[in-house]
Amino acid sequence: MSEVVNKATLAKGTTGVLASLTTGQKNEALLVMAAALRREATAIITANGEDLERGRLNGTPESMLDRLALNVERIGSIADGLQQIVVLPDPIGDTLETIERPNGLSIEKIRVPLGVIGIIYEARPNVTVDAAGLCLKTGNAVVLRGGSSALSSNRKIVEVLHSALAETDMPKDALQLIEDPTRASVDEMLKLNGLLDVIIPRGGSSLIQNVVLNATVPVIETGAGICHTYLDSSAIPEMALNISINAKAQRPSVCNSMETLLVHRDYASKSLYSLAEAFREVNVELRGCPETVAIVPWALPASLEDYATEYNDYILNIKIVSSLDEALAHIAKYGTKHSECIVTEDQAQAARFLQEVDAAAVYHNASTRFTDGFEFGFGAEIGISTQKLHARGPMGLPALTSTKYKIYGTGQVRS
Amino acid sequence: MSEVVNKATLAKGTTGVLASLTTGQKNEALLVMAAALRREATAIITANGEDLERGRLNGTPESMLDRLALNVERIGSIADGLQQIVVLPDPIGDTLETIERPNGLSIEKIRVPLGVIGIIYEARPNVTVDAAGLCLKTGNAVVLRGGSSALSSNRKIVEVLHSALAETDMPKDALQLIEDPTRASVDEMLKLNGLLDVIIPRGGSSLIQNVVLNATVPVIETGAGICHTYLDSSAIPEMALNISINAKAQRPSVCNSMETLLVHRDYASKSLYSLAEAFREVNVELRGCPETVAIVPWALPASLEDYATEYNDYILNIKIVSSLDEALAHIAKYGTKHSECIVTEDQAQAARFLQEVDAAAVYHNASTRFTDGFEFGFGAEIGISTQKLHARGPMGLPALTSTKYKIYGTGQVRS
Repeated sequence: MSEVVNKATLAKGTTGVLASLTTGQKNEALLVMAAALRREATAIITANGEDLERGRLNGTPESMLDRLALNVERIGSIADGLQQIVVLPDPIGDTLETIERPNGLSIEKIRVPLGVIGIIYEARPNVTVDAAGLCLKTGNAVVLRGGSSALSSNRKIVEVLHSALAETDMPKDALQLIEDPTRASVDEMLKLNGLLDVIIPRGGSSLIQNVVLNATVPVIETGAGICHTYLDSSAIPEMALNISINAKAQRPSVCNSMETLLVHRDYASKSLYSLAEAFREVNVELRGCPETVAIVPWALPASLEDYATEYNDYILNIKIVSSLDEALAHIAKYGTKHSECIVTEDQAQAARFLQEVDAAAVYHNASTRFTDGFEFGFGAEIGISTQKLHARGPMGLPALTSTKYKIYGTGQVRS
Repeated sequence: MSEVVNKATLAKGTTGVLASLTTGQKNEALLVMAAALRREATAIITANGEDLERGRLNGTPESMLDRLALNVERIGSIADGLQQIVVLPDPIGDTLETIERPNGLSIEKIRVPLGVIGIIYEARPNVTVDAAGLCLKTGNAVVLRGGSSALSSNRKIVEVLHSALAETDMPKDALQLIEDPTRASVDEMLKLNGLLDVIIPRGGSSLIQNVVLNATVPVIETGAGICHTYLDSSAIPEMALNISINAKAQRPSVCNSMETLLVHRDYASKSLYSLAEAFREVNVELRGCPETVAIVPWALPASLEDYATEYNDYILNIKIVSSLDEALAHIAKYGTKHSECIVTEDQAQAARFLQEVDAAAVYHNASTRFTDGFEFGFGAEIGISTQKLHARGPMGLPALTSTKYKIYGTGQVRS
């Protein structure tokens, strides 16, 4: 039996117990896990040092090494994250619907765990703890397959968490880490129907596309975001500037940041130059349509490929449009159905934009950067779904649940 | 461009208009469709005759031909089905959640259509109309790929529906029928990410497995049902008999019928013989564990493969167990997470069964045959989901929807 099948089978074996744990038992487990991480911080940092050392030898860029690096403070905030999950309401067992039928059948729709969740992710070892916490809180077993560059860290973290779970009512086999760093283990997880109930990929677009295109297990697609902001002719320049700069430059590396600014021609003729200057001040490279380049001489010409690119960087496309319709058509063509914004004082234009744009989150007069489980008040986030099935947009704890119908009869049969 | 890509592209082109149609406009379209089917019944019956003729030449069994055959009465009841969808509440536009954030952002979670739904199904031409009606009512475009044996019927039906839609506000391209009867068209649909938002297979288990194992488009798995009924030692014999006979024999060909009866040893020693006689009277072949065969001499020995088989026929496995735990273990091993029942007067045993069995529908003292959208009061059913993502159990109109967050701001940016 392969490592993947072996560990997924162990995880599946715990789902019955997990589904029956009380909220108190699950919270207790998370608290013990958090305490163990703090207590074993030194050992975790030592293991993390092996990953960093290997990374340096492999020529990994410093920015990547920084994301991988753990210290006491970071481990503390990872443990804090577990404690934050503790205070969130437990969705499991909630009654979502009650149906009384004329034949006397009483039907309850109850929230239940999904079962076994596979998470395939990249470097940062905080995901190991975060994903484990969210899955276990919702009574799911979890099979983690992290990136090979964080393998020593992940292995140590899971060892610490396993020791912690041994002191609790939560079966330690509910948490599994796949240690095989080769692609074979990912490929095997993708086809593990019957053992995994869902796979959630977290990482860059090539990781996600590999999962989406090769999995036979149901997938929740997350992540890719080519987000737009449309400045209507009636947009207030100060608000338009604040929202645009925030959407692009507050944290360009994330999926809800803006890649293309669409500007109504009337707005552009009045206010695009000063807006472009503001982008220059925060070191955003501009690429524009010919009209934009005519107004903003330092903008480079944008290609069609640019409009289809998620830069995740200090680069922005600007395109001048003549109408809301043209903006909507551009978004329909290049958007990834993640987050889209209109800045306007015209309520009718705003209403049309929010109705007609097909995306997980559509904004009127606010930055696309708010598409986030914490910003939405969910208190947690396992990812941002960019698909339409099951969950769309930021996913909090309820996104990690399924439902079950319980039907109470008194001998009813169907005629 | 292939037929599949061409038609899926046409369907996708209508999703913006579809999402904005009022409930009144959608209902009007369904009513015009229903009227057209009745008016063109003769032409549809003629086309159906071609399918029947071809079927006879190919040696299709009479029972299959009967399922394929249309007459004025059947067309009338298909049209009735559309009219029943008209009276159902339209879930689109419903506000599911409202969140007010401390920073003043106002967030609404709204029900929206999924987009373009692909339906891959087998012979019966009523599915063509039924699926079209459910998808269009929920503002979804639909790409139908029916079985080749009903191609003439389906083609004529869609022609009639297209003419009907031309008189309404519903774009006729929202309804597409793939006419290529080869497997290539199915294979192409399964990989049509970007044009199809979801595929729902309806049919036998080989059709469903092909879709589940080969699709890169998200799938809602439906159908396969190895359902159990467990007769606890405290079961009332009359109720146990009524429920068991109904679960097996009222309509054995469907997914919510029972395949294996699990019987507590105490119940078996008192009442299994008379129950077995009742099954014999309704011509159900029995296959049993050695203990069962000792009590019921005409039962054949059941193999392990029998327990894993969805007979969809007048055949039943009987297995005697010594405890609820043994029954639960059998169901966990052989069940398909569809519908499971316990018959007992012991509330504690019932509560444990309903809690611990992992299935879409779990019954206490009622027949598994009730797992059905109409019996649950949904007024419609697009299928019964046996997966845990998105929808589980009978799927009514809300299962054909997604959600979208609309966020209203006054210039908020993220800090």
